[in-house]
Amino acid sequence: MSGSAAIRASVPWAQDERLARAAWSRLVEPEDHVAGWVLHALGPLEAVRHVLTASPIPVEVAEGQVARPTTARRKLDEGLERWRVRLARVAPERDVEVVERLGGRLVVPGEDEWPDGLDDLGTAAPPCLWVLGSSSLAETVRRSVAIVGARACTAYGERVAADLASGVSDRGVTVVSGGAFGVDAAAHRATVATGGITVVVLACGVDRDYPKAHDQLFARIRETGVAVSEVPPGSTVTRYRFLQRNRLIAAMTRGTVVVEAAWRSGALSTATHAAELSRPLGAVPGPVTSSLSAGCHRLIRDVGAVCITDAGELLELVLGIGEVDATKDGVPELAHDGLGDEDLRVYESLPLRTGRPVASICQVAGLPDRRVRSVLGRLAMLGLAQSGVSRDGERVWWRPAHPGSSAQGVLPM
Amino acid sequence: MSGSAAIRASVPWAQDERLARAAWSRLVEPEDHVAGWVLHALGPLEAVRHVLTASPIPVEVAEGQVARPTTARRKLDEGLERWRVRLARVAPERDVEVVERLGGRLVVPGEDEWPDGLDDLGTAAPPCLWVLGSSSLAETVRRSVAIVGARACTAYGERVAADLASGVSDRGVTVVSGGAFGVDAAAHRATVATGGITVVVLACGVDRDYPKAHDQLFARIRETGVAVSEVPPGSTVTRYRFLQRNRLIAAMTRGTVVVEAAWRSGALSTATHAAELSRPLGAVPGPVTSSLSAGCHRLIRDVGAVCITDAGELLELVLGIGEVDATKDGVPELAHDGLGDEDLRVYESLPLRTGRPVASICQVAGLPDRRVRSVLGRLAMLGLAQSGVSRDGERVWWRPAHPGSSAQGVLPM
Repeated sequence: MSGSAAIRASVPWAQDERLARAAWSRLVEPEDHVAGWVLHALGPLEAVRHVLTASPIPVEVAEGQVARPTTARRKLDEGLERWRVRLARVAPERDVEVVERLGGRLVVPGEDEWPDGLDDLGTAAPPCLWVLGSSSLAETVRRSVAIVGARACTAYGERVAADLASGVSDRGVTVVSGGAFGVDAAAHRATVATGGITVVVLACGVDRDYPKAHDQLFARIRETGVAVSEVPPGSTVTRYRFLQRNRLIAAMTRGTVVVEAAWRSGALSTATHAAELSRPLGAVPGPVTSSLSAGCHRLIRDVGAVCITDAGELLELVLGIGEVDATKDGVPELAHDGLGDEDLRVYESLPLRTGRPVASICQVAGLPDRRVRSVLGRLAMLGLAQSGVSRDGERVWWRPAHPGSSAQGVLPM
Repeated sequence: MSGSAAIRASVPWAQDERLARAAWSRLVEPEDHVAGWVLHALGPLEAVRHVLTASPIPVEVAEGQVARPTTARRKLDEGLERWRVRLARVAPERDVEVVERLGGRLVVPGEDEWPDGLDDLGTAAPPCLWVLGSSSLAETVRRSVAIVGARACTAYGERVAADLASGVSDRGVTVVSGGAFGVDAAAHRATVATGGITVVVLACGVDRDYPKAHDQLFARIRETGVAVSEVPPGSTVTRYRFLQRNRLIAAMTRGTVVVEAAWRSGALSTATHAAELSRPLGAVPGPVTSSLSAGCHRLIRDVGAVCITDAGELLELVLGIGEVDATKDGVPELAHDGLGDEDLRVYESLPLRTGRPVASICQVAGLPDRRVRSVLGRLAMLGLAQSGVSRDGERVWWRPAHPGSSAQGVLPM
């Protein structure tokens, strides 16, 4: 024990909770559940002490996670072994310095800027976040939606992503995405263009621009929004990190929508995380002939994703019914909408060009004289029927050329 | 009573159950619920006797339909009055003769050719059907699906309707539709072209071709499938009859799919009937930028329609899971699909171009030497990792150019 005490004394970061968390983010890969148990049960100081000193982690740490103590023992020992592999690389003071030099900061749980939603990840929650940008991350994502999708999206996917992003950011909702080509970039760009706030959750260190082609975009995001990562500065991307990063996008937003995704797609992992976290999940439909909509249709069919066709529906998904009016705009009411069966039957019996006497209308509509006369009066009031006197001196009825206009009619014979 | 007996004697059709039903189909408009109560409670002979003699219909007929006897009395009296309006037009023997001359027949409930599904309509069931075609209607619709949609559909809607129709008819499922322009016609045509069976449910008499432009198509359908209507020969179409006709399409099929439909569309009425009858309901998604897919998306969002993207999914919808294999064809398995987390982390740590020693892989993957060596062995067996000896005499590993091909590698340095 005096040996381990000596080691602790020799590494200052091991005595600072924030730096210990920063170190932990270097030692373990994202979503290492065993690491999550240890951090949760022991706290960061005790966790890093075990890694530094290679002292066995108490088996109680795995309580409630695995049933058999021998399995717990093995998993904890294996964990300790794999975390120690990266000990030589750990230098959290330097990592913090790198990020601070870029105007960023380390954020740990319990701090104001920590997004509440991440706590829903349980032992899969990140030990800390590395953040660049002028806004508070927590404030920014309080009203937010993740807009994600295929990298190799179509022009349709790009357009819809942009429409959704500008539509929701117009309403003060933050757009969160992964900074990738395709749907992600279209969502970020449209938000920036609208003057909205966007958050990019990176799979590499926040000091890196990946993909390189988005360096200008990321620069804009850091100015007006936030760039965030769970891996320390300098970290490179791997497919594994991309997939794990997606759980952060799902957890820190109020809902996720997938714009375009192939049948097998990384964007579906974000969707799966959202569903597992009981976050509202939406998917944008597209042509069934497009393989890039197959993943979205799969989400709607098999995962119960809500079919999202415009920004209003997306706002409704994440903000809840009542906050948004979801009726369709631009669909004109038809003149005879809302007519009862009998009214419709009489209306349908009215000729368009020549007038028709009531007796004939009765036969066509299959309704008695008294009913037809009463309905005709109602239709006339609605501007849906007009009457005049025919050449034979008989009163006849017809349908006006512009139903519902209530104009007094001239007999169209 | 002697007066009414005399009238009954003077009209032979009033003494024949089938002809009385045929007469009823002339007297009442489709889905006249009060007429449905009367026919259900009194049977066709007694029902037409009341119309012929204008004798008040017993108020008990409305039992269970309306709560207050005064309302029942009023509704029955109004019904009798409106049905009597068309008495002068009734000539069921002539109607049967017209249809039989065309090779058709009158079909009434209880007969072999009567589709069971129609009984689910209760008092909204038609009194009889007028049928043309060589197949038994009941047999034909036992395994059937309704494919319906917009008249003014897009090329996309036409293509999808045709794909679905030929796909399901290939599997011996009958395609039922309404014979209209657009989606309906595309479904009928593709079925005929595939050599499948299709049923057209008309809103006019079966002796009429509406729309006229489809006379050739209807002729083909009558040869190989069935044309059916609830209104007697000679009847013209009205918007009201189109809407009522849709309930027959929904009721006589095992499920309905809407291919394209505007936000407000007649095809949605078929969908609503299907939902009310607890028949499986599907809708084909499309671009959210297309107003002709808005109705389909509405069905998926608000009515719980299943998102249908191909014929396999449509078969699954109407035949039930198990009868059809719904896994996607044509999606290649990726080499690393199904790898565990640890395997994926090691796989991701393998370089593509240059070999990397195990120690370096351990650091990148964040896993101890023993685990990495075990995973590398597994990956090598799967053809996902290759090893060789570097110029320094060190064993190094890399990712093969064609993962999963299991080819023995040459060091790619």
